[in-house]
Amino acid sequence: MDVEDKVEDKIDGRLIRPFINATLNVLKTMAFTEALASEPYMKNKETANGDVSGVIGMTGDHNGSLSVSFPENIILAVVSNMFGEEMKVVDDEIRDAVGEITNMISGQARQELELVDVSLDAAIPTVISGKNHTIKHISSYPIVAVDFVVGEGEFSSEIKDKFTIEICLES
Amino acid sequence: MDVEDKVEDKIDGRLIRPFINATLNVLKTMAFTEALASEPYMKNKETANGDVSGVIGMTGDHNGSLSVSFPENIILAVVSNMFGEEMKVVDDEIRDAVGEITNMISGQARQELELVDVSLDAAIPTVISGKNHTIKHISSYPIVAVDFVVGEGEFSSEIKDKFTIEICLES
Repeated sequence: MDVEDKVEDKIDGRLIRPFINATLNVLKTMAFTEALASEPYMKNKETANGDVSGVIGMTGDHNGSLSVSFPENIILAVVSNMFGEEMKVVDDEIRDAVGEITNMISGQARQELELVDVSLDAAIPTVISGKNHTIKHISSYPIVAVDFVVGEGEFSSEIKDKFTIEICLES
Repeated sequence: MDVEDKVEDKIDGRLIRPFINATLNVLKTMAFTEALASEPYMKNKETANGDVSGVIGMTGDHNGSLSVSFPENIILAVVSNMFGEEMKVVDDEIRDAVGEITNMISGQARQELELVDVSLDAAIPTVISGKNHTIKHISSYPIVAVDFVVGEGEFSSEIKDKFTIEICLES
């Protein structure tokens, strides 16, 4: 049984795919950055580490939360591509960009979910910064993670690293 | 014009008071911990620092987010009181407790808000840990903060320090 099977056993893949599509699309259209998505996998206990993360809560047909956790080098490269200028430190502009990215991923995913009759509302995103923080979704329901490898874009050509989204949707 | 006036100018105090009451009540009933709340004040740009924070999104009559940010010494003292045993490190038990505290503050506040005909749904809480992280609510609406000084309880008698809640509710 591979990881994907395990995920499919426990959660409805139709709920996860829209978040993957949205992440790829937001990176591409906002930051001209191509990314490769891993297969979704279950988080057993510990959580994504990141240096800057966006978190957004969702309610409606499912209660849930989405987190998008970036290592510093990746988010600097992504936002450099967004702005067309090289960003060197995690500052308020970076945090606002992470909030916007999180908002857009949630928005596009929720739009795609409407097509399978799943309706979700989104709360205000929050952005956490702090070297190597962890995020834990507090739920007894499965938490699904997807890694994204980034290696394209004007300022990020030498970077081969990943960022992670985590999705928890209660039934 | 004092800080409270400024807050009252910009946001409806009736929306904030229930979060203060809920925080005091949750600490008292769950952790046998008395706290003193500051007057609410506006966050201008930067955000609460904390070592462990709970964040919960809300939707409904207002879109919003609530964060509860604890320094390590305070959350260890609070959870020690909750569990009746001395907690020495921030581990998964502490994170789960912060998730539960955040959930209960949101739940009790939303219940009190129903009395003034404000209906809010809550998403899944997330808990962030990482020394001295910051949390930023991504919204053009005002963010209101309240500090809580904690100085009571079996394990925290020598501690005089504060934790902070931040509330952002869009109109």
